[in-house]
Amino acid sequence: MLPARLEDLPTPSLVLDLDRVERNCAAMAERAERHGVSLRPHLKTAKSADLARLATRGQPGGLTVSTLAEIEYFAARGFTDLTYAVGIAPHKIDALADLQRRHPGLRVTLLADSAEALGQVALRAQSLGARFAWLLEIDCGGGRGGVSPEDAELVALVRSVEASPALDFAGVLTHAGHSYHVVGRDAHAALAEAERTAAVRASTRLREAGLPVAVVSVGSTPTAVHARQLPGVTEMRPGVYTLFDLDQVALGVCDVADIAASVLATVIGHNPRSRRVLVDAGALALSKDLSAGEFGAGYGYGLVCPIDGGPPMEGLRVADVHQEHGLLAASDDSDEAAAAMFTALPIGARVRLLPNHACMTVAPYDRYHLVRGGGTRVEGQWDKATGWNAGVGGAR
Amino acid sequence: MLPARLEDLPTPSLVLDLDRVERNCAAMAERAERHGVSLRPHLKTAKSADLARLATRGQPGGLTVSTLAEIEYFAARGFTDLTYAVGIAPHKIDALADLQRRHPGLRVTLLADSAEALGQVALRAQSLGARFAWLLEIDCGGGRGGVSPEDAELVALVRSVEASPALDFAGVLTHAGHSYHVVGRDAHAALAEAERTAAVRASTRLREAGLPVAVVSVGSTPTAVHARQLPGVTEMRPGVYTLFDLDQVALGVCDVADIAASVLATVIGHNPRSRRVLVDAGALALSKDLSAGEFGAGYGYGLVCPIDGGPPMEGLRVADVHQEHGLLAASDDSDEAAAAMFTALPIGARVRLLPNHACMTVAPYDRYHLVRGGGTRVEGQWDKATGWNAGVGGAR
Repeated sequence: MLPARLEDLPTPSLVLDLDRVERNCAAMAERAERHGVSLRPHLKTAKSADLARLATRGQPGGLTVSTLAEIEYFAARGFTDLTYAVGIAPHKIDALADLQRRHPGLRVTLLADSAEALGQVALRAQSLGARFAWLLEIDCGGGRGGVSPEDAELVALVRSVEASPALDFAGVLTHAGHSYHVVGRDAHAALAEAERTAAVRASTRLREAGLPVAVVSVGSTPTAVHARQLPGVTEMRPGVYTLFDLDQVALGVCDVADIAASVLATVIGHNPRSRRVLVDAGALALSKDLSAGEFGAGYGYGLVCPIDGGPPMEGLRVADVHQEHGLLAASDDSDEAAAAMFTALPIGARVRLLPNHACMTVAPYDRYHLVRGGGTRVEGQWDKATGWNAGVGGAR
Repeated sequence: MLPARLEDLPTPSLVLDLDRVERNCAAMAERAERHGVSLRPHLKTAKSADLARLATRGQPGGLTVSTLAEIEYFAARGFTDLTYAVGIAPHKIDALADLQRRHPGLRVTLLADSAEALGQVALRAQSLGARFAWLLEIDCGGGRGGVSPEDAELVALVRSVEASPALDFAGVLTHAGHSYHVVGRDAHAALAEAERTAAVRASTRLREAGLPVAVVSVGSTPTAVHARQLPGVTEMRPGVYTLFDLDQVALGVCDVADIAASVLATVIGHNPRSRRVLVDAGALALSKDLSAGEFGAGYGYGLVCPIDGGPPMEGLRVADVHQEHGLLAASDDSDEAAAAMFTALPIGARVRLLPNHACMTVAPYDRYHLVRGGGTRVEGQWDKATGWNAGVGGAR
């Protein structure tokens, strides 16, 4: 039986504010529409089919995913158009071909940036009688995956598998991951333009060589929120905007009141000597991500909200984490502030902790407990994907 | 069907070198025997019943655990003597009572350090007709949970629930978590002595007040390895020694060749501009823990070993992680070093990544793939616990 209130849930548990998710999804859909591009939300963040349905409502794009476990999960829930936006490891073709066989209608689009990978993938897919669309990954400056849009081998790379009956070239994809390391509207707008021009430049070079480029895909949450124009782009793939987090607040992309996911925790101790409140959500329940710390935001491992999801409690943060312990501290690290904190947070009290980086925090949980803003009534549960690999029970 | 070789496993996957686990377990059992104390290994690290059987072979202690999911997992596999070494949240008594009801013979020992928690726990347990042994947590300087051994309320705290029919006082427990932040045999030996004297001092004060103290429990891996004497102590509870990791190497507690758990990953790209090899194990597969970095060890997010588990590849490290991407770099960050790295690690090649902090890295995986030293043949699988809460399927 579903506990009816947050007061009755086991802790740590993952809580999702549906009002905020709906607002975040609607705002991004509106941005995509305004730019005249498809929205293909990255579900590596939320890993939830219910959330994906909200995010794609009325949107022409499919989903973006980052693991085979996500592909298996979303395919089993009726999603058929999935872009697997991690450079393909050739050996994964076997599992992907098997997923396409088991889910008629499923079409997984692959990502690659080298002739070696493409050659191996083409051979393996052909030997299995499988067929995949694929996108060429372009590096727009992040220095992770992708070739430069000016790479001398750009056209040759696509031509290297042009004759393969197993691979259909679909277009280009880039991701401005470095947008997570600059702050503010103008800086993100500049990277959005760099992202756009890299993808468009590559698509132009390929089209000039006679190659068809249907997809010109860009996207990160900061660039998707702050892009000023997207001509030449066909789709965007932001992800963390669905949940938002303290890192995005520190980057100037959202407000604290937009953060939709939080970790419900219980106060398990007071330590007057170290002036810390102990809660039962630590390094595993929150993750050790300190992204927002890059900009000196003072959020520690998270901010502390009351159980009803109201604004963060003034001056409190998760100052340290051990495996299953979180240590809350007051920014004024005095005995008086600690005493006030102990009074506000007695043993057994429950809090909701806002994550630094939602993608890291929500990953290990297998479900969301749903609330509406300002309440503690549990409206329902959403399942979600976990782990990495496809197979019986999502083996990982 | 079980893949026969590491070359055929999906990636990322968790690999366990059984030879190393056996060696680590035997060495710790020998230390406990030499000190004349029971070994109650902390299974929050490995979360595996098979590993627990190795760790406790011939040892009189039960297990230490840190989540209800672990209690449920180990109880279902026949372990009956479990110390739940996280300060008890009163509401968890319901689930714990239910676990004891469902597993006849199961005896969970609780941890507490406040009269508030004890009072609530005693009432709740009594109303459910449940009974628990409990330990008083002592703070030996780590500043996490526990009361000072000199606390004026020490005796009163235990007396506060002496009359409860639901709680049986069993003794004292302390954990020198600060041993993870000092380096070397002598520093750890000093903290081991501080850990011992804190627990023994508390036990003496309680005994002098006429209270029975059966258990005097200490333990962290650095202090367990480097303790010089443990008179007055009855048991130790180290955990990470079962797997070891780069942090323990940096602390001077073990050698790289003792690290038993690694993450199998596949090379998915080369980026000559940023001089990085990309692998399909990133922030979720490795964790974002950078513990060893505290001592400037230069291990980044992990070291890179060949697939057969041989010594780390000279000068390589996981320099950065994104959600599902790891970026390998050479310590000599030149184009020549990058070219050599690309040659050594072609697309599709497999590597084994040694973790910074094993407890963080192995947590989200649901199984270990077993190998023996120097081989890639998969000898079997061990399941493991994941998540936090007890219930149908280990709900989390």
